[in-house]
Amino acid sequence: MSSFLSQRMQGVEQSLIRRINDMADPSCINLGLGEPSFPTPEKLRDFLKENIDSWHLGYSPNAGIPELRKLIAEKSSSRAPADQVCITVGSEEALFLSLIATVDPGDEVLIPDPGFSTYETITKIVDGVPKKYTLDPAKNFAFRADDIEKFISGKTKVIIINSPNNPTGAVYPDKELEKLAAFLMDRQIFAVSDEVYQDIFFDELPPSISRHMENCVVINSLSKSFSMTGWRIGWCLFPEEMKIPFIGLHQMAVMCAPVISQKVAVAALQGIAEEEKNKNLEELRRRRKLAMSCIEKYTDLDYVKPSGTFYILVDVREKSLRFGNSLDITLNILEKQKVVTVPGEAFGKAGEGFLRLSFAAAPKNIEEGIRRIGHFFMK
Amino acid sequence: MSSFLSQRMQGVEQSLIRRINDMADPSCINLGLGEPSFPTPEKLRDFLKENIDSWHLGYSPNAGIPELRKLIAEKSSSRAPADQVCITVGSEEALFLSLIATVDPGDEVLIPDPGFSTYETITKIVDGVPKKYTLDPAKNFAFRADDIEKFISGKTKVIIINSPNNPTGAVYPDKELEKLAAFLMDRQIFAVSDEVYQDIFFDELPPSISRHMENCVVINSLSKSFSMTGWRIGWCLFPEEMKIPFIGLHQMAVMCAPVISQKVAVAALQGIAEEEKNKNLEELRRRRKLAMSCIEKYTDLDYVKPSGTFYILVDVREKSLRFGNSLDITLNILEKQKVVTVPGEAFGKAGEGFLRLSFAAAPKNIEEGIRRIGHFFMK
Repeated sequence: MSSFLSQRMQGVEQSLIRRINDMADPSCINLGLGEPSFPTPEKLRDFLKENIDSWHLGYSPNAGIPELRKLIAEKSSSRAPADQVCITVGSEEALFLSLIATVDPGDEVLIPDPGFSTYETITKIVDGVPKKYTLDPAKNFAFRADDIEKFISGKTKVIIINSPNNPTGAVYPDKELEKLAAFLMDRQIFAVSDEVYQDIFFDELPPSISRHMENCVVINSLSKSFSMTGWRIGWCLFPEEMKIPFIGLHQMAVMCAPVISQKVAVAALQGIAEEEKNKNLEELRRRRKLAMSCIEKYTDLDYVKPSGTFYILVDVREKSLRFGNSLDITLNILEKQKVVTVPGEAFGKAGEGFLRLSFAAAPKNIEEGIRRIGHFFMK
Repeated sequence: MSSFLSQRMQGVEQSLIRRINDMADPSCINLGLGEPSFPTPEKLRDFLKENIDSWHLGYSPNAGIPELRKLIAEKSSSRAPADQVCITVGSEEALFLSLIATVDPGDEVLIPDPGFSTYETITKIVDGVPKKYTLDPAKNFAFRADDIEKFISGKTKVIIINSPNNPTGAVYPDKELEKLAAFLMDRQIFAVSDEVYQDIFFDELPPSISRHMENCVVINSLSKSFSMTGWRIGWCLFPEEMKIPFIGLHQMAVMCAPVISQKVAVAALQGIAEEEKNKNLEELRRRRKLAMSCIEKYTDLDYVKPSGTFYILVDVREKSLRFGNSLDITLNILEKQKVVTVPGEAFGKAGEGFLRLSFAAAPKNIEEGIRRIGHFFMK
């Protein structure tokens, strides 16, 4: 019997990161997941409990609660006003719809390598052609406009920029973003700037390319900064031209973002949980140091020092002769040491030879997990 | 400057229903919206308040909380097991992804006329060709397999079935569904069965085409039956073949449905709010009678007696010479009588000449709204 699936579904499946996480039983130490171990701030949960009975829990306007759109427009470095903001089901929906809205069949979408694997899958779903721009491991995965320009062709329609970068932890310098923006504007290339880790940085505040160009979608969420991944609350800001079609598309896709999450997001952006948020960010800074010191103490591996995100790449290239590629290593560490890591190949070719460890895990798990990884390689 | 929008975005905008609702100021009587006036049942809100502090509010598995998927598989008339259930962001996401997953460029999608307008818009977004099958006003919009077969061509890939039907309120008879299912299976046509109004019926329980064929997606939600539209919680059940790509696609689109809503959905399906749900359904039954008696009392209009949903179509065809088409009438009633209605043309050609009134509104609004509509035509 013939398949009912559309062509664009070929090869669509859950991401490798998710599948590896699903393989792990609860007794494993999880250094694989992309979410903080902190609960959602107590003040936000209390706000919900105290106010839910007074809320209208029917549909919100498609694009979101006006007050929330206004707060986001005010806080963003993008110059888009509130009516160019759409509240989305996490940053994932914003990303998915941004590519549906801009990519025609055959258009090339430039994607960071290493980079979040869903960029490539979504590009294929919208009939676009994913092309990678390499962030060179030999240059510590640095983001350089001159290097990226070489990957642009006459068919490039969209470039995805992700700073702070998952998985490298790099924060892109403002002067490189400015230089790239000028180049993109010259060639009428649209930018999708995924800034979901913007609040999680260890040196200077991560700049946004939206300061330098208007033809971009800026994507962000409360998931990582407020430990609200399960609440599914994100947003994007877009150019005036996209306003009507994007909000229409969003209505067709999900109608509106969950209203309880929107209500709580207003309170979060008004600052009622700022103290706990900052405490958690401080704790992430400590865990980053812990992760680096544990790698030095328990392993003989090099690592890429992150400037943002809660990920750290450890270099296992010298181990490949004995232990196989990054996926082999991940699967073996999972089986033998009960530690979940993510193989670099999940992020593209340039990620091969690295493992991504998350230090959003609890400190005792960071220490024990890295100790076991060290033990794995010592044997 | 050239547009950055993809071709498929041409003409995508918020639905006419939404735009009319957005035009209305809060002082208007709203007989236009697709949601009950009841609050979400108190027992569900209490359950949330009492338990949220003990919940993990990070990501759920992409396809949803296992317990919820299991409950849905058990309650559905579809034979799909729990691992062929995906929890979605309301029924809207399920519909959007079902068409992405099955429609190739140029494939024809058969859509009910009159029918929910987003069917057509989504079909265009996925590069499909929308074709309408007419539910004939002269036959009281009855669903007859023989009539529908005539609209099927060699290019028909998918048919959308919506029973109880929005806007006609028709519940499709099981023997017609069975007959159509046999015809669809012969021709390898896939069915998308939108059953979001399944719990809202006034005579016999609405049957599902999924009892008669496997190659279909069944879509449902808690939105209408539990007054949870803003919670964005729905689901679909699909054939075994779609399991991996559909859940992968869902991950790319939204990652997972909102976790708080999923947790509350488990409690709802376990029955903790059954009493309030049934009370509300009884109240809707009373409001249906009220709406019919008000139409008889205050207007000289015919109407289509609904067997399900909370909509009633009133026939304004004889008014068109004096008052214009259904959109003109809707806009004039809104301006002059401050009552929101939905023009039949929002649902397709076969809906033209009718207005859709929602009796999910509060009784005093139903009465006053219909009184004003009567007044509008009497002048």
